[in-house]
Amino acid sequence: MSATMTAAVFQGKGKIGLREVPRPVPGIGQALIRVTLTTICGTDVHILKGEYPVRDGLVVGHEPVGVVEELGPGVLGYQKGDRVIVGAITPCGQCRACLSGVASQCGHGGSGSEAAGGWRFGNTIDGCQAEYVLVPDAQANLARIPDGLADEEVLLCPDIMSTGFSAAERGHVRLGDSVVVFAQGPIGLCATAGARLAGASLVIAVDSVPERLDFARRMGADVVLNFKDQDVVAEIKRLTDGGADVAIEALGQAQTFESCLRAIRPGGTLSSLGVYSGHLTIPLDAYAAGLGDQTIVNSLCPGGKERMRRLMSIVAAKRFPFRELITHPFRLAEIEAAYDLFSHQRDGVMKVAIRP
Amino acid sequence: MSATMTAAVFQGKGKIGLREVPRPVPGIGQALIRVTLTTICGTDVHILKGEYPVRDGLVVGHEPVGVVEELGPGVLGYQKGDRVIVGAITPCGQCRACLSGVASQCGHGGSGSEAAGGWRFGNTIDGCQAEYVLVPDAQANLARIPDGLADEEVLLCPDIMSTGFSAAERGHVRLGDSVVVFAQGPIGLCATAGARLAGASLVIAVDSVPERLDFARRMGADVVLNFKDQDVVAEIKRLTDGGADVAIEALGQAQTFESCLRAIRPGGTLSSLGVYSGHLTIPLDAYAAGLGDQTIVNSLCPGGKERMRRLMSIVAAKRFPFRELITHPFRLAEIEAAYDLFSHQRDGVMKVAIRP
Amino acid sequence: MSATMTAAVFQGKGKIGLREVPRPVPGIGQALIRVTLTTICGTDVHILKGEYPVRDGLVVGHEPVGVVEELGPGVLGYQKGDRVIVGAITPCGQCRACLSGVASQCGHGGSGSEAAGGWRFGNTIDGCQAEYVLVPDAQANLARIPDGLADEEVLLCPDIMSTGFSAAERGHVRLGDSVVVFAQGPIGLCATAGARLAGASLVIAVDSVPERLDFARRMGADVVLNFKDQDVVAEIKRLTDGGADVAIEALGQAQTFESCLRAIRPGGTLSSLGVYSGHLTIPLDAYAAGLGDQTIVNSLCPGGKERMRRLMSIVAAKRFPFRELITHPFRLAEIEAAYDLFSHQRDGVMKVAIRP
Amino acid sequence: MSATMTAAVFQGKGKIGLREVPRPVPGIGQALIRVTLTTICGTDVHILKGEYPVRDGLVVGHEPVGVVEELGPGVLGYQKGDRVIVGAITPCGQCRACLSGVASQCGHGGSGSEAAGGWRFGNTIDGCQAEYVLVPDAQANLARIPDGLADEEVLLCPDIMSTGFSAAERGHVRLGDSVVVFAQGPIGLCATAGARLAGASLVIAVDSVPERLDFARRMGADVVLNFKDQDVVAEIKRLTDGGADVAIEALGQAQTFESCLRAIRPGGTLSSLGVYSGHLTIPLDAYAAGLGDQTIVNSLCPGGKERMRRLMSIVAAKRFPFRELITHPFRLAEIEAAYDLFSHQRDGVMKVAIRP
Repeated sequence: MSATMTAAVFQGKGKIGLREVPRPVPGIGQALIRVTLTTICGTDVHILKGEYPVRDGLVVGHEPVGVVEELGPGVLGYQKGDRVIVGAITPCGQCRACLSGVASQCGHGGSGSEAAGGWRFGNTIDGCQAEYVLVPDAQANLARIPDGLADEEVLLCPDIMSTGFSAAERGHVRLGDSVVVFAQGPIGLCATAGARLAGASLVIAVDSVPERLDFARRMGADVVLNFKDQDVVAEIKRLTDGGADVAIEALGQAQTFESCLRAIRPGGTLSSLGVYSGHLTIPLDAYAAGLGDQTIVNSLCPGGKERMRRLMSIVAAKRFPFRELITHPFRLAEIEAAYDLFSHQRDGVMKVAIRP
Repeated sequence: MSATMTAAVFQGKGKIGLREVPRPVPGIGQALIRVTLTTICGTDVHILKGEYPVRDGLVVGHEPVGVVEELGPGVLGYQKGDRVIVGAITPCGQCRACLSGVASQCGHGGSGSEAAGGWRFGNTIDGCQAEYVLVPDAQANLARIPDGLADEEVLLCPDIMSTGFSAAERGHVRLGDSVVVFAQGPIGLCATAGARLAGASLVIAVDSVPERLDFARRMGADVVLNFKDQDVVAEIKRLTDGGADVAIEALGQAQTFESCLRAIRPGGTLSSLGVYSGHLTIPLDAYAAGLGDQTIVNSLCPGGKERMRRLMSIVAAKRFPFRELITHPFRLAEIEAAYDLFSHQRDGVMKVAIRP
Repeated sequence: MSATMTAAVFQGKGKIGLREVPRPVPGIGQALIRVTLTTICGTDVHILKGEYPVRDGLVVGHEPVGVVEELGPGVLGYQKGDRVIVGAITPCGQCRACLSGVASQCGHGGSGSEAAGGWRFGNTIDGCQAEYVLVPDAQANLARIPDGLADEEVLLCPDIMSTGFSAAERGHVRLGDSVVVFAQGPIGLCATAGARLAGASLVIAVDSVPERLDFARRMGADVVLNFKDQDVVAEIKRLTDGGADVAIEALGQAQTFESCLRAIRPGGTLSSLGVYSGHLTIPLDAYAAGLGDQTIVNSLCPGGKERMRRLMSIVAAKRFPFRELITHPFRLAEIEAAYDLFSHQRDGVMKVAIRP
Repeated sequence: MSATMTAAVFQGKGKIGLREVPRPVPGIGQALIRVTLTTICGTDVHILKGEYPVRDGLVVGHEPVGVVEELGPGVLGYQKGDRVIVGAITPCGQCRACLSGVASQCGHGGSGSEAAGGWRFGNTIDGCQAEYVLVPDAQANLARIPDGLADEEVLLCPDIMSTGFSAAERGHVRLGDSVVVFAQGPIGLCATAGARLAGASLVIAVDSVPERLDFARRMGADVVLNFKDQDVVAEIKRLTDGGADVAIEALGQAQTFESCLRAIRPGGTLSSLGVYSGHLTIPLDAYAAGLGDQTIVNSLCPGGKERMRRLMSIVAAKRFPFRELITHPFRLAEIEAAYDLFSHQRDGVMKVAIRP
């Protein structure tokens, strides 16, 4: 077995390219996965552009589908050859944050006082846009793929399905709720599906790209609104007789965050998925001067093998055409082209698939 | 029975004074209460100063203790002479908001699309700094005072106990949580008691007035911090090993709101009670760019007779020295002096009691 | 306007038949509804058979669709001619139970210490298998039918949709849960739809009637099990790798209740809808001697106009073929035939529709 | 270092006695703790009597206080000499049950389909009535004792405080609730404290032993009832105007379970802690034929280091005289005498302390 592998490596602002790097060896509690499929996330593009800092030389990527190649000591119940996925967030299951029910804020043995500590792949440790990836806390994170599901069908579970669905979950969508989802990129489309899954009777999808709005209908939207054509907040208030029960921010813009607050009814919830790059404002009027009984939640993609098992069970139940979100396949050797296409949102791309 | 009564009336910015006004007659579903004790709230001071708009000629005040004088048609199960309190917020129990579990956003028959609709006394209808007050939706709002409790003991239930406790409730304080309460005015002191009541094992009270910090200890604070003496956010992080589980804003300042966000741990909750007079900012760093799994809730004082019954049961259980929050008694005839004392926070005043 | 009306009246064990009775006049807070469509519930059959005691002379029925004929004093925001439905349970919204979030246990002004107090129509007051029905606490209970929905489409909202969905709600079904529904009568079929609506990824329907199992698939079941053909508990454990997350009892038999307990995994939930006629047993083994972290909930059909609004919004969203549950139309004059057909479950009947 | 240690070993029905056994060596993810204090639980007495089956030769006991002696590979962040406690239940944090929020039903790598899988010490692996104990999944279970707390102060955290408090938590006690706790043994007394901690305004303690009722008052009971003197269910209904919000079963008797059901109001909750030895009955009347909107939960002692940290923070806050529950100290050499005293409930014993 070769001692090196090919991997997509961050090489300074503006450059993610392939490089031969040492193939990792699993230590205690770790597993080595041979990657069979992965994808590129919007966050990876932020890394490429130098907008999110990671160290030079880091292998990027956090959405692995693969096969168990080697198990480190202490990992039980798996075998070489098992087909698995691993969530983008890899909680240890054993720290204060994990044991408190906020596993995405995992402290990996520490106190959990650093936010977003659960996100390690392609952030604080090597990621999965590579031939192999080392999985930390493997016992908590290796999720077996059920027979009958192809790699492409589960590729979106590690991040965008988990993130998208969390909006409805954290927003406590109830049967018969009205939910509006701002922005219908891959995460937003999964949020739309999640709102539908959670029992909303009126799911309103907002975007400006007609193709995305069309896709939103297929992902469960009852009504779609193009913000270029109308005052969407006013229209949402009209459709919902005073404001949506839950508004989901799936873009990461301060202005959208504000629109969400304006779109909910008194007592409503803003469920934020966006990754923001500046301070946010809570307008006094939309916040009823503090007297509106509103709830504002944000979420980092839930991970762990049980989360992945649940998401794959939803894929298996064929509730939505998740697979069609994958619009462009690439080989790992073509990853720079894939980044180029995806980062410029050309050719109607939703998600790419990268096959090592 | 005289056809008029004495009442404290808003007479334009800067003037709340007594006036003889017609005594109301209860219509269907209403009750007339003879007020035996009431108090002045910080919101009343905002009204006095013209910072919160109400119509000229409105009777102000929203914290009534009294006796049933007359029942309108359709109010059952009460009798003239019953001692009652009524919450500051008077939900109808029968509109969309009330039936959805956000009764403070009551639409009083309408759709509930206007925020804070449940607050009517001294806001949209005549209030209780008067000899009599008309109670709307009396069936849902007249809460009988248990035998053995004096007027002074239940005077704080209609607003500050209900508001203060809601911070812990809406913030989902759990057994063993660490909770910090910013500002130890009457509401903040009740929030401190509420955090203690809800099972926090570390209640941290923040203020700059030594007497208020001393009182905070008696209301359940385990630790008190004077923000003039230290960097309280840093100290909170030290005491809690990374951030409090819940931070409560009990002042209504944008800066305090930000401090609360900085004081909580990843996955933590900001529970806001403040009434703000400007936009609020969510700092990018404190919000972990949207990835911190934080929850931000705000609350308007819960009302209704069942809420009042529960609060009075807590008073009756003698868990805390609530009554000592009432520092200065006045007669209704002296209400201008009471406003003067209370609005200038002279003489160590916490809450005044006004006896018609 | 005639002073009498035709109504189906309980006339002693074994006899429900038409009788001319005085047409009621709405008092304070009440409304008179001209019934345009109603149905027969399993509970009505229990009444007919003398298994559930009501007083002689009572007008039966609790699922009204109709038109506002006359409003009593104090009912605001409605007009004669408004098309409305009213829930089987008519909470007042203003008593201790209602204000505590358990409106089905409404005390209608009293303390709420009598169970199931919210069920009044055809139980403690005259019901709606009649030309007219008097609605108590009309402000909380008149739910306007949205334009575009026919009477037949909303006929099931007052009881079986509300009851059926409550199983998933009270059972806290989460995205990706496995849920088994025992019995696929009308309530069970709605429970199946409710589990699907609430985001279960594996909905298992159990019955012995092939047609009902077929219908269950159309109502959202992923798998159907015929208990005459197999050991369903064993099969459920196999399908769910150890037990369902939630099991729903929709029959009202002690044995089914036990099967539900045996079908759930440790930490799972039994959500009971059944109306039982004998004591229930919790088997020691299925209960893990008390150490299984199980939850057992039962539910009485939620009512009130907001509940009805939500249910009608789900009908309007066309998620499921609810209307096809109505298999047999009758005129009010034929109600004895309708009872005969329904009580004997002849001719594949699911629900009848009765048109006065 | 000696290769053997002294341990209390189950030697067949009726016999738990000291024996020299091999001292364990920690493997991957494990830790060896030198026990400095432990105690005997009611469950141990069941084991002694042969009522709960364990294998011959098992070291019993599940409530360890001690010092880290040796860490197995992969356990990070601890050092030899650290003072720690470990919960009676030792979740792995990494299996389906743990990652689903029901850690007491831990599958330790498996599917979690066996109930109560989280209880290992003195049940499926060697326990801690010994000089040393091997801790599985140490990373998730070693809880450092805060400076300033003596062994005796934290001895009750591993089981009875955790179990007792879970009744209020699982029962969702809210501020102002009325809660009745049936049986005031060590667990029941902690349940009483837990109800008080969680904000109940009326905590009613039931027992027949005057000394226990006296102690209950010190643990937070507002009212105590001796079931030998009165019809406690009737008295509870009187005190609560129709039934308690939550009733806690802390004995493990079918009759007490029934009394709990009868003591709660419609919509109320039965929170069961008891370990039962026979089937339970749900009486039709107390269950309102299934229409009472009741909730019945049972709980197995929550474990894990975060749980222990929280419990120790409650001890440190000095809310209740937990330490006084420890009435009789013994040396390990005297353990047979300790069992004799404890199992016969002689001499007013509440809990014994065993010091190796």
